[in-house]
Amino acid sequence: MTGLPMTVPDPALPARVRIHEVGPRDGLQNEKTAVPTAVKAEFIRRLAAAGLSTVEATSFVHPKWVPQLADAEELFPLLHGLPVRLPVLVPNERGLDRALALGAREVAVFASATESFARANLNRTVDEALAMFEPVVIRAIEAGLKVRGYLSMCFGDPWEGAVPVGQVVRVTKALADMGCDELSLGDTIGVATPGHVQRLLTELDGAGVPVSRLAVHFHDTYGQALSNTLAALRHGVTTVDASAGGLGGCPYAKSATGNLATEDLVWMLDGLGIETGVDLAALTATSVWMAEQLGRPSPSRTVRALSHKE
Amino acid sequence: MTGLPMTVPDPALPARVRIHEVGPRDGLQNEKTAVPTAVKAEFIRRLAAAGLSTVEATSFVHPKWVPQLADAEELFPLLHGLPVRLPVLVPNERGLDRALALGAREVAVFASATESFARANLNRTVDEALAMFEPVVIRAIEAGLKVRGYLSMCFGDPWEGAVPVGQVVRVTKALADMGCDELSLGDTIGVATPGHVQRLLTELDGAGVPVSRLAVHFHDTYGQALSNTLAALRHGVTTVDASAGGLGGCPYAKSATGNLATEDLVWMLDGLGIETGVDLAALTATSVWMAEQLGRPSPSRTVRALSHKE
Repeated sequence: MTGLPMTVPDPALPARVRIHEVGPRDGLQNEKTAVPTAVKAEFIRRLAAAGLSTVEATSFVHPKWVPQLADAEELFPLLHGLPVRLPVLVPNERGLDRALALGAREVAVFASATESFARANLNRTVDEALAMFEPVVIRAIEAGLKVRGYLSMCFGDPWEGAVPVGQVVRVTKALADMGCDELSLGDTIGVATPGHVQRLLTELDGAGVPVSRLAVHFHDTYGQALSNTLAALRHGVTTVDASAGGLGGCPYAKSATGNLATEDLVWMLDGLGIETGVDLAALTATSVWMAEQLGRPSPSRTVRALSHKE
Repeated sequence: MTGLPMTVPDPALPARVRIHEVGPRDGLQNEKTAVPTAVKAEFIRRLAAAGLSTVEATSFVHPKWVPQLADAEELFPLLHGLPVRLPVLVPNERGLDRALALGAREVAVFASATESFARANLNRTVDEALAMFEPVVIRAIEAGLKVRGYLSMCFGDPWEGAVPVGQVVRVTKALADMGCDELSLGDTIGVATPGHVQRLLTELDGAGVPVSRLAVHFHDTYGQALSNTLAALRHGVTTVDASAGGLGGCPYAKSATGNLATEDLVWMLDGLGIETGVDLAALTATSVWMAEQLGRPSPSRTVRALSHKE
């Protein structure tokens, strides 16, 4: 199986993509059993060693809401000196204070494109949530940090169904105007299809949000994540979120979030000759190791296929 | 979840796609436990009722090689009168005789793009296999049948690795020149990526094999089937092979073939506003029913997501 995938570039696609690895944060946050802090640190070290240049490390949310990431204060210092970007999620000013105290250089806030999810997740209206984030973003920028704005439910919402594109554009632009360096467009329930992706990206262009500031964050709940990624690449997007081994998307759980597996993404990008800096074999070995720690197989098809052959 | 996926067409893609459903043949042929003939017939009836216009019904191969489909003579008459196309696989003249005796109107032959697989699967060289198929194709055409030519290992081969595009073009053209109405390009081990798909389709154009005669048959072994399909649609392909529920691709078996799940395909095509005639809810219900018959869950992500919500 050497020489596979065969590399055949498509000149209409970018030459290089930066993968924003979310496994240690988005992937682990819903794990039921506690993952030891030392295992998380080792996971992040192995991801960095596999060539991922950005690894979202943890979240400074209140431990009551995400107990799995309650060890952020213990974990973050263990990562000191790793030669990669290590953004952390901060839900509010208190979270930002904690992240700043530990020397974080990048933070992310987590907004919603829909009223229903803003209410369910943050107990606020969309605009109230934006108002809550504004001082976080401003203070982070003043402190010299890079700030990413996550926008969830960009393509559909479990309560509202389809989400009007104009509504997504309005909230994305508000986060951009607030000063977020990067906007990650999340298909939280995995319902997007390629035409929908193209329309959102086109309307964001028209609203003056440049594609260079956009990232895409697709979920594989309906198996659509990679074709949506291809549509986004064709539009010029060069930052793609993915989760090593597809963590966060246990296929048999009702709570499946179904993150795009980083390995499935890298297989496609390798085949297209798009540089990522990632060593697929090392990444797969990392996900196999992490699956052993969690005691269940990876839902990534590429991890399964490559590890069956080992 | 009404109104999802949201329909947003892409004018660069075809308005209509014909799905060539392979579940009852390609999906079931490797099942270890015997599936009763009546269940197979009911499966095909339900697929037809869900709007699939072409359902590959069975194979007239020697029972010694594919015991699961040894009931072709019993099954085929049960389908009499179904208002859909019901192609059947025929490996040789003896198989064609059996299919003709039962009144089959469409047959398919199964060739290989690589010497290794021709040797493993047919115990012949590529050219010897083509020579064996020639009288089958000629006699089928004389009898007024439509003939499909399957070509396996078009993008990679487990023994040879990457397969030169020119080699695939040569064998595809030979099948086209022989008189096959339709050529189905198979990624048997699931290793293709979108640029590779585009290059093969472009070279087939150049060799005078029109895209209107091509079908694509992608496997999801590495999670690539749907993005490869999108690349093929962009090139003008309008016939796509898929297997209801992803049958034939048990994700935990070493022998995983990983057929593209019809439901995952229909979700994307529905979102793109591409007509297929398929009712996704009825199709999903059919795959849930079939999974109960087989005693294990469907590997289709769309089937899992939609049936969790029921």
